Amino acid sequence: MRHSQLFTKTSKTAPKDADSINAQLLTRAGYIQKEAAGIYNFLPLGLMLIKNLSNIVREELNRIGGQEILLPVLTPQTSWKKTHRNHLDILFKTGNLVLNPTHEEVVTPLMQKYLSSYKDLPKAVYQIQTKFRNEPRAKSGLLRCREFLMKDMYSFHTDDPDQDRFYLEVKKAYEKIYSRLGIGERTIYTYASGGSFSKEYSHEFQMLSPIGEDEIFFCEKCRLGFNKEIHASQCLECGNKNLKTASAIEVGNIFKLKTKFSESFNFKFKDAKGKEKYVIMGCYGLGISRTLGALVEVFHDSRGIIWPESVSPFKIYLFSVGKDRAAEEIYQKYGNIFYDDRKEISVGEKMAEADLLGFPYRLIVSEKGWELKKRSEEKTKIINEKELCLLTTA
Amino acid sequence: MRHSQLFTKTSKTAPKDADSINAQLLTRAGYIQKEAAGIYNFLPLGLMLIKNLSNIVREELNRIGGQEILLPVLTPQTSWKKTHRNHLDILFKTGNLVLNPTHEEVVTPLMQKYLSSYKDLPKAVYQIQTKFRNEPRAKSGLLRCREFLMKDMYSFHTDDPDQDRFYLEVKKAYEKIYSRLGIGERTIYTYASGGSFSKEYSHEFQMLSPIGEDEIFFCEKCRLGFNKEIHASQCLECGNKNLKTASAIEVGNIFKLKTKFSESFNFKFKDAKGKEKYVIMGCYGLGISRTLGALVEVFHDSRGIIWPESVSPFKIYLFSVGKDRAAEEIYQKYGNIFYDDRKEISVGEKMAEADLLGFPYRLIVSEKGWELKKRSEEKTKIINEKELCLLTTA
Repeated sequence: MRHSQLFTKTSKTAPKDADSINAQLLTRAGYIQKEAAGIYNFLPLGLMLIKNLSNIVREELNRIGGQEILLPVLTPQTSWKKTHRNHLDILFKTGNLVLNPTHEEVVTPLMQKYLSSYKDLPKAVYQIQTKFRNEPRAKSGLLRCREFLMKDMYSFHTDDPDQDRFYLEVKKAYEKIYSRLGIGERTIYTYASGGSFSKEYSHEFQMLSPIGEDEIFFCEKCRLGFNKEIHASQCLECGNKNLKTASAIEVGNIFKLKTKFSESFNFKFKDAKGKEKYVIMGCYGLGISRTLGALVEVFHDSRGIIWPESVSPFKIYLFSVGKDRAAEEIYQKYGNIFYDDRKEISVGEKMAEADLLGFPYRLIVSEKGWELKKRSEEKTKIINEKELCLLTTA
Repeated sequence: MRHSQLFTKTSKTAPKDADSINAQLLTRAGYIQKEAAGIYNFLPLGLMLIKNLSNIVREELNRIGGQEILLPVLTPQTSWKKTHRNHLDILFKTGNLVLNPTHEEVVTPLMQKYLSSYKDLPKAVYQIQTKFRNEPRAKSGLLRCREFLMKDMYSFHTDDPDQDRFYLEVKKAYEKIYSRLGIGERTIYTYASGGSFSKEYSHEFQMLSPIGEDEIFFCEKCRLGFNKEIHASQCLECGNKNLKTASAIEVGNIFKLKTKFSESFNFKFKDAKGKEKYVIMGCYGLGISRTLGALVEVFHDSRGIIWPESVSPFKIYLFSVGKDRAAEEIYQKYGNIFYDDRKEISVGEKMAEADLLGFPYRLIVSEKGWELKKRSEEKTKIINEKELCLLTTA
């Protein structure tokens, strides 16, 4: 892509109401623009981030048998009355419809139409879709929104052991996702309360960050966390009593729903002996836009964002210093390049913009040759055609 | 994909409230499932249709310089008050927010933040996103919904001639899109009123169909249509007075917005002489889910749907008659195949399902060899490996 085609512009200052690093940098770089409290527009480069992150999530969930679907935003309140969740404060409503903040009330009666025998189970479906929460304290940029993009998966099983097996598969898939996003090391699998309808634990994936709203206790030895609800005085795995406290951002959560929702909708299957039983369900959330915000909170410096390659809109930020023709040739020949082809913009400004946008590499074509610099490092290196070819195709 | 992995099931009968061919066939085949009046779930194969159709639209709009963005569902009513559209009956509202049925009220103040000089113009942005209309008479399956997927593009220009130039580019892009969807011949470029804010015509793309809600008059010679608002007694192009009447489904519309919205938001740019002028805007809609419904209305027979290859989830519906191992090998070796690997399902049932789902080809591996049948034709042909290879890679 050529910079001259892009309509967004970067800004040296952040909007006054940008209350977090992610809101400041994403807005300044032209990835997002605020519409209202907790509601954002995704601009061309921001939508590329969303697509890259979503595709990583899709790949890992498809690998464990997830089938992608798309459920609606609006659902009749009658469905929410069945689960006694119609009076939740966070529900946005319009007429007799709810703007869904989660989709158990949709997916349970939907799957009930197709799954009726033990032969139909297990199955897992997921979607990447816009969710709504009437959040009185929308804040921290993409971290706490009223409208946000979320991946939610739901699984359906004949019995608890099968649900337990799949739960672990999802755990592993999530770990792969966070690892591909570059936050595997700092994302802690954390025990949480199972909620009002389960005596078992649920689990959160908590990314350590000083700005995190959640406080967790964690065992460094086992890399396990325990959220405040748990009141854990020692590690549930190894008994280590020396738990550390840390702030963290919740970037995912997984729940065993047991028969909570299948009972509400009378969703039963016939087992091998023809006996009717309630379907066992699980649900698995991963905030797409929130995780994007979380990435910025950990991957930035004073000059701007430092994207992991896996989500960056482009691999290389290219511009010329007096060598426009050579730069043009490179842009035409290689892929995954963002070419700052603007005239009348100083080298200093282009350098600042490259740093703010945060693509993994910057390439300056000058009299010295092809000067490559990694966004995360200070040193510059002259590279040749073969090295550039390797870089753009790796 | 293997049929045994898919959770959906086909049905021999349609739901009683399915009031159109598209609702009946798409539901019976397991592409969609109704959530409430005018609100649908998209199931795995249905979401593939949406993605294929969306990607065709993206390709053609990117080609003319469209930049993809994602605007929010919710917008403060204050923006709708500025354009005096806050009292439209079709607006869904929640608190002080509107569920956007279109996005002029969002995109105009958004682009205003970035476009301020004639050097910044022209620009065009688009999104593929969920829209909402509080439609009292939701009906005809995907044709008239309360929640629906739409592509909406907006363009920004310094003057009318530049808007006119881009308007024609969009017209050509739309014609390519409809042509790739197989409905180019039957989709008529139709003059419509410019609406309350323009004396010029707007244009609709009307796909001829007996179930269409709109009635148009059209000139067979020029392939031009005139909608009822126009009261055309003759073709505006050639003067032909022998206009035919026909029913049609509106699958797209394009508007010159002039300065209607830039005036509401005081969106001005500086021209080359430094003089401030209102930005000239255009908007261009194309219903993604509606067009999917329209395709089914024209591409079906008594046995089911007949997808154009460009949107079909898979190219080939494969199953074996006593040759499971050979069928398995074909499935493993070639792409773009949906493999009906279910046991205990009769050949007749599999044939009926292949017809209902409507992928372009059916391949039966039997003692006779590899029997290929086009969904749209009756004759069967024995093919060899080379022919299959060509078919799956073409």
